[in-house]
Amino acid sequence: MIAPGAPLVKDEFIAWIRREGEQRYHDHHRYHRLMHDGKLTKVQLQQWVLNRYYYQTRIPIKDAIIVSKSEDPAFRRMWIRRIHDHDGTETGEGGLELWLRLADGVGLDREEVASYRSVLPGVRFACDAYVELVRERSLIEAVASSLTEFFAPDLMSKRVLAWERHYPWVSPEMLAYFRSRVPRARRDSEEAVDFVVRHATTYELQARCVAALIRKTEILWHLLDCAYAAYVDPAWGPGGARA
Amino acid sequence: MIAPGAPLVKDEFIAWIRREGEQRYHDHHRYHRLMHDGKLTKVQLQQWVLNRYYYQTRIPIKDAIIVSKSEDPAFRRMWIRRIHDHDGTETGEGGLELWLRLADGVGLDREEVASYRSVLPGVRFACDAYVELVRERSLIEAVASSLTEFFAPDLMSKRVLAWERHYPWVSPEMLAYFRSRVPRARRDSEEAVDFVVRHATTYELQARCVAALIRKTEILWHLLDCAYAAYVDPAWGPGGARA
Repeated sequence: MIAPGAPLVKDEFIAWIRREGEQRYHDHHRYHRLMHDGKLTKVQLQQWVLNRYYYQTRIPIKDAIIVSKSEDPAFRRMWIRRIHDHDGTETGEGGLELWLRLADGVGLDREEVASYRSVLPGVRFACDAYVELVRERSLIEAVASSLTEFFAPDLMSKRVLAWERHYPWVSPEMLAYFRSRVPRARRDSEEAVDFVVRHATTYELQARCVAALIRKTEILWHLLDCAYAAYVDPAWGPGGARA
Repeated sequence: MIAPGAPLVKDEFIAWIRREGEQRYHDHHRYHRLMHDGKLTKVQLQQWVLNRYYYQTRIPIKDAIIVSKSEDPAFRRMWIRRIHDHDGTETGEGGLELWLRLADGVGLDREEVASYRSVLPGVRFACDAYVELVRERSLIEAVASSLTEFFAPDLMSKRVLAWERHYPWVSPEMLAYFRSRVPRARRDSEEAVDFVVRHATTYELQARCVAALIRKTEILWHLLDCAYAAYVDPAWGPGGARA
């Protein structure tokens, strides 16, 4: 019998993380389902790319905060690779650049996307909340919030197939970002879950990790809520909020 | 005639930075002068190495905070190299590792140094204040606070010569960290001054940059004040503060 407060064993803890994350992951969101079913219009697809770009730009920032929270050079070496993944090691490389090429590929103006000018307010709030979550919580919770990466490889693989099938007007090489994420998200989530399992040594810490992951799923979900409200069931337009 | 509030021209601004930094740089501190004149005892040299290690460990942390404050992938790529300089790209590499070898070289227990257990309280306060300064101030001020690197190459070159001459019991290969800093500090300070000059577009911003640099010199200075008070004119000992 387990004492109250005793940590779950590794496999049970991982199963808990997976269960909470999986059921809340944004692939279940109706905007996402419309996307993968080929039912988004060009504008709806474009606006997803544009708004999601703001999320993408927050990733290296929150990862640098995570690096700054660690006292361990080995951990920092491991985690810093994520910043390189998004920023590249040369101009014109990295995930953010690939995302801007995707923006080109769906017919957006790259400068407009990079300016964040048209990002929906709610998307901005949610993405900024992610950076704040990472800044305010402990290192282990910040790492746990990245565990949505668990579910990313499957989603990216499906997305590439869905886009190739349903949106043939997007050139396949524009999907390079999604392809690049499949092995990286797998590696990243393995490293992160390993860290979380080793350091969540009490039930309370385990619960805090799960709570951080749940908050992260809410952030990803809210991004799509905002896109849905604005571009599928419009309540927001170029001039601002619509009544 | 310059309007009130107009920024100084580039050369004048750089001269201001250099003037304020140079006169306050910790090479003028009496602990430092004793070190370079070969007048520190072994314990005094050891304790400098031990206490300064805590400062060294704060560098990649404050640099990761600086990376997290930038919206520009090109800037982040440039700055992230500093984290690699200290953490290395493999286990057993990087400036922190070289510093621990220096600790070995002066006869300290490496684990003891790495544990921070014997760091003087005031040294900890000063070094933590550096991290907080970088966290709280704007990106440009955080970058400006790194401009003590302007003066580091000269100091490192002199230090290597002084140690080889006065402390022959320290094996010369243990001085690798100081040697490695000469070209790196030169490159780092050039990048940082270039950034500060480009972005300090008002006199008020220029003054804030100089203020950040001055605070940084106070931090480095205080580290030596604490070492002096504890190990030259002792007011602090293994058992805690001495009356």
